[in-house]
Amino acid sequence: MDWIHTSHQNVKVLDCHRTLTFCCSLSLFSERAMQHLKHCQGLAQVFLIRSQSSRLSKSVIPSLSVWDGHFSCRWRSTGGHGRQKYFNDRLPKFRFALAGLLAGTGAVLAYKLHQDKVQLAATSAQLRVTQTSDLPVYTLEEVTKHRSLDSGVWVTYKGGVYDITEFVAIHPGGDKILLAAGGALEPYWALYAVHQQDHVLEILSEYKIGVLNPESYKKQESANPSDPYSAEPTRHPALQINSLKPFNAEPPASILSDNYITPSVIFFKRNHLPVPRVDPEAYRLEIEGLSGGVVSLSLSELKSRFPKHTITATLQCAGNRRSEMNKVKQVKGLNWGIAAISNATWSGARLRDVLLYYGFGPEVAAKAKHVQFEGLDKDVTGTAYGASIPLNKAVSEEGDVLLAYEMNGEDLPPDHGYPVRVVVPGVVGARNVKWLGKIVVSDEESKSHWQQNDYKGFSPGTDWDTVDFKSAPAIQELPIQSAITHPAEGTSVDRSDREVTVKGYAWSGGGREVVRVDVSVDGGKTWHVAKLRTSDQGQHPAPPPPPGRAWAWKLWEIDVPIPHRAQELEIVCKAVDSGYNMQPDTVAPIWNLRGVLSNAWHRVKVLYVGLTQNG
Amino acid sequence: MDWIHTSHQNVKVLDCHRTLTFCCSLSLFSERAMQHLKHCQGLAQVFLIRSQSSRLSKSVIPSLSVWDGHFSCRWRSTGGHGRQKYFNDRLPKFRFALAGLLAGTGAVLAYKLHQDKVQLAATSAQLRVTQTSDLPVYTLEEVTKHRSLDSGVWVTYKGGVYDITEFVAIHPGGDKILLAAGGALEPYWALYAVHQQDHVLEILSEYKIGVLNPESYKKQESANPSDPYSAEPTRHPALQINSLKPFNAEPPASILSDNYITPSVIFFKRNHLPVPRVDPEAYRLEIEGLSGGVVSLSLSELKSRFPKHTITATLQCAGNRRSEMNKVKQVKGLNWGIAAISNATWSGARLRDVLLYYGFGPEVAAKAKHVQFEGLDKDVTGTAYGASIPLNKAVSEEGDVLLAYEMNGEDLPPDHGYPVRVVVPGVVGARNVKWLGKIVVSDEESKSHWQQNDYKGFSPGTDWDTVDFKSAPAIQELPIQSAITHPAEGTSVDRSDREVTVKGYAWSGGGREVVRVDVSVDGGKTWHVAKLRTSDQGQHPAPPPPPGRAWAWKLWEIDVPIPHRAQELEIVCKAVDSGYNMQPDTVAPIWNLRGVLSNAWHRVKVLYVGLTQNG
Repeated sequence: MDWIHTSHQNVKVLDCHRTLTFCCSLSLFSERAMQHLKHCQGLAQVFLIRSQSSRLSKSVIPSLSVWDGHFSCRWRSTGGHGRQKYFNDRLPKFRFALAGLLAGTGAVLAYKLHQDKVQLAATSAQLRVTQTSDLPVYTLEEVTKHRSLDSGVWVTYKGGVYDITEFVAIHPGGDKILLAAGGALEPYWALYAVHQQDHVLEILSEYKIGVLNPESYKKQESANPSDPYSAEPTRHPALQINSLKPFNAEPPASILSDNYITPSVIFFKRNHLPVPRVDPEAYRLEIEGLSGGVVSLSLSELKSRFPKHTITATLQCAGNRRSEMNKVKQVKGLNWGIAAISNATWSGARLRDVLLYYGFGPEVAAKAKHVQFEGLDKDVTGTAYGASIPLNKAVSEEGDVLLAYEMNGEDLPPDHGYPVRVVVPGVVGARNVKWLGKIVVSDEESKSHWQQNDYKGFSPGTDWDTVDFKSAPAIQELPIQSAITHPAEGTSVDRSDREVTVKGYAWSGGGREVVRVDVSVDGGKTWHVAKLRTSDQGQHPAPPPPPGRAWAWKLWEIDVPIPHRAQELEIVCKAVDSGYNMQPDTVAPIWNLRGVLSNAWHRVKVLYVGLTQNG
Repeated sequence: MDWIHTSHQNVKVLDCHRTLTFCCSLSLFSERAMQHLKHCQGLAQVFLIRSQSSRLSKSVIPSLSVWDGHFSCRWRSTGGHGRQKYFNDRLPKFRFALAGLLAGTGAVLAYKLHQDKVQLAATSAQLRVTQTSDLPVYTLEEVTKHRSLDSGVWVTYKGGVYDITEFVAIHPGGDKILLAAGGALEPYWALYAVHQQDHVLEILSEYKIGVLNPESYKKQESANPSDPYSAEPTRHPALQINSLKPFNAEPPASILSDNYITPSVIFFKRNHLPVPRVDPEAYRLEIEGLSGGVVSLSLSELKSRFPKHTITATLQCAGNRRSEMNKVKQVKGLNWGIAAISNATWSGARLRDVLLYYGFGPEVAAKAKHVQFEGLDKDVTGTAYGASIPLNKAVSEEGDVLLAYEMNGEDLPPDHGYPVRVVVPGVVGARNVKWLGKIVVSDEESKSHWQQNDYKGFSPGTDWDTVDFKSAPAIQELPIQSAITHPAEGTSVDRSDREVTVKGYAWSGGGREVVRVDVSVDGGKTWHVAKLRTSDQGQHPAPPPPPGRAWAWKLWEIDVPIPHRAQELEIVCKAVDSGYNMQPDTVAPIWNLRGVLSNAWHRVKVLYVGLTQNG
């Protein structure tokens, strides 16, 4: 890679190319990769983004075809010399693709995963990787010797042998890549389906140095562990899938507001890792940081020792409505619609009761500031999903934090944390840790990636070049939110109807009750107050919650008179909570690079069609 | 008043005319008057508002001159017959004035009070009221006999005798007017300076039936009590006065952010009634609703029995920045600028400690839901200023509610509640009751006007015709707020400066910490993150508050590069709190009839002048 030093800019661009191709990982940026991205973004700012329409979204989707057609082929068939010339020749096109990757990894991913779903496409790129060539033939033993930076880092993929020594430093997932050193990539890529895209294979192909002999390949194949996602639960077919591995899906907006209590099967799913299968008999919950030492608690002890409490609480993903931010400017993350939010009843022990029982008191309180949670869902390095909440939320009588073992009156479903999850009402979904394995009372926040370098909000003026994750607090309480579930964008209203029925949901974090929803059908010029609902049809309305403990959403509905001479209706909703917080008017001024906290007024355009005379 | 039944619409209009002339009372609407106003608003919606410029505000100021010139004169000199004809002739002009009154009582009031300040104008209208005529002459004894609806309600004003029997039902202040029955209006009008406007006298003149004999008038004059506002404290000359009686004033925005701790003398003043002068030796604080019966507590007991706690807390009036709402459409209320907000240190006993000491426990908690406060400031009927807060805020360890007796290290100043006030950090100013006389632990909110029929937020689509005060919660926690204190609107920035320094404040209710302030100089297209400050110059920054207990504002500052070719800068700020609540973009969609909760992005336009070449 002698040429790599001839031009600083080219080095950066190339690094970015490689880095970003790999960095589609849903939430697995290492801090190192973040730093790397920051450098890259400086270049990307000046690039153009080419868009192409997709059947999934009207947002900007970067094109990868430029890349596929030329770049990798050339690289595969040539040595180090000549690469720079080629690179310079193709720079404009290259930049195209790079900018797309930089700005749109989340969308690319969502798009690709949705398009391909289960099937791993037998693409031309893949064929190129696996095709025979006149490269040297290696045995598995030879490959195994190269498992450190000193001896070189070799990996195999579908019978090919790759020297990725130089790539290790720029791998977005950081040193984790070394776990595969001297062996097969397949088991690791299986864990992070994001790698299974053509352009990732293209990058890999740059490092090809040979092939395994057939015997070694066969041996390796049989030794490969099974897909970590092979034991995923069966899901409801209505779910709209944003990513299959890990599984992330939302119900269709049209059915979301049909139920005040969302049926568990269509409750939005937001997994960061494979669903762990937990034996309830063997299950133990560990608790650290209390005065009596480490506690180990069985499921039956949790159920029998502590009173069972039930709350109705809405959970919302920080990325709900991210797709609207993507329309302003591409962000990183799953392309959620408006339904990464659902409402359920949760039953379990109060975290407060459990902590007090095992020795939480003034002595602990004097030092501790946070309660950390670890899931039993782990990545390939054995790192568990983790998050933390402020101590006062965890131990307050009014915090209502549960170690829940039931959802909607039944055992938690596997996708929702069986056998035990944390429910932190009023707080972003990401802190409601599922498959709870450990609780740590601590003076520090969780050190996890998801607490430190993800799920934070930034100014629209902050990009990957300037972001400092330490400068923003981890999202806990979420701001006021509302969205229109009916009618759907682009549908029609008949002129014979003098009114249009509009429905939706509204919710706010921190236990702040939704006190009003305003609806407009003229884009926000005039407003009408919707009727709020706090129960399912035929059920008694929920009693008003105590102040600061309104954990559940409100559904709303209104028949709005249609203005004379309307051709198109721009339906808008905005909600107000008990702290009189309002939603911002527009998306652009709250845009942020992670696409979280998307809570501007929700807007839906519908046509007003038919004969005016009959109206 | 036989004519009054000939046309339903005219009845309404006439009622409105009278009602609204009197209803400029700052916050003294009775529920009955509200009902009345609702009827009137139905008419007013279709009326035009005529504006005239004023030196105080560029907002719409209704004209009252039409009225002064004709209406009352005619009515005074004619009997019941002919009134309808006159009325119909003048309806368009009448409507003008009526709409102005309906939409703009607050602004009219603020305008008038500011313009006239102390002096009571010897206007032509006043002369007409007091001038001699050929009307019957009455003795004070004869007037005294008419003090009920049965016997008729007569009052006197500057020697004139008025039969206001028919007006009682439509008096915006409700039955309180009967307190003056059979006697002089002067002592009551002195309490509510709002009455001292020409058009109020005009209305009164309609009811003139005679004059007092000179002896009675002299006797009455000498018996009149002194002005209840004569003992008001001396105020700092820098204060910008929004109303003199009661006293309402804010510091100039330009000096507001000079101090992190606002000096008490320029801390915004928001009084609803005359400042009571309280003898600290005689002072007693009563507490009701606890298990041990009524408690009576002296000032020295309060100071000695309970630990002294100090917090730094920002108070904000619900009407802060109301003037921006007035520019969209006139609202009712004082025309506050951006400085009805200030920050101070407060010391006193914790309300929680006091309640626990006197018997608050599970038994009380099982029934009680609110803690009510009554001030020692009383209106002419003896009704004290009152408000309440939710019980959990009052008794929570983390609520930090104080019975404060010190402000900025000294005894409370008279304007801020000497000797004791409630400080409810994170909660709207109106609940921070001053000159605290009584605490009631109750299952009900305060029944006071200010809790029930004021200080609530409504949809922009809600007007006085449709408002139902019961439908909205009393404002407690306030939403995220920020404003620009420098530069001032309309000032200039020199082209030789490549940057403009922008300063301001940011605060949020409910103990939510301000975590970021975004500033734009191009009207919101691009944003920069300001530097936050939590102490005065030379002082150490305040330590970070515990979560949910950030009671104090943050001051902020930033030097923003000026865009090329800018002629005018539209400087905008918006803040974000720890719940990631954002400010709404624009004022119109959060406009509400009381003009409260005005927290849209603050915008300031400045000119960019000088020679480009030198820049």
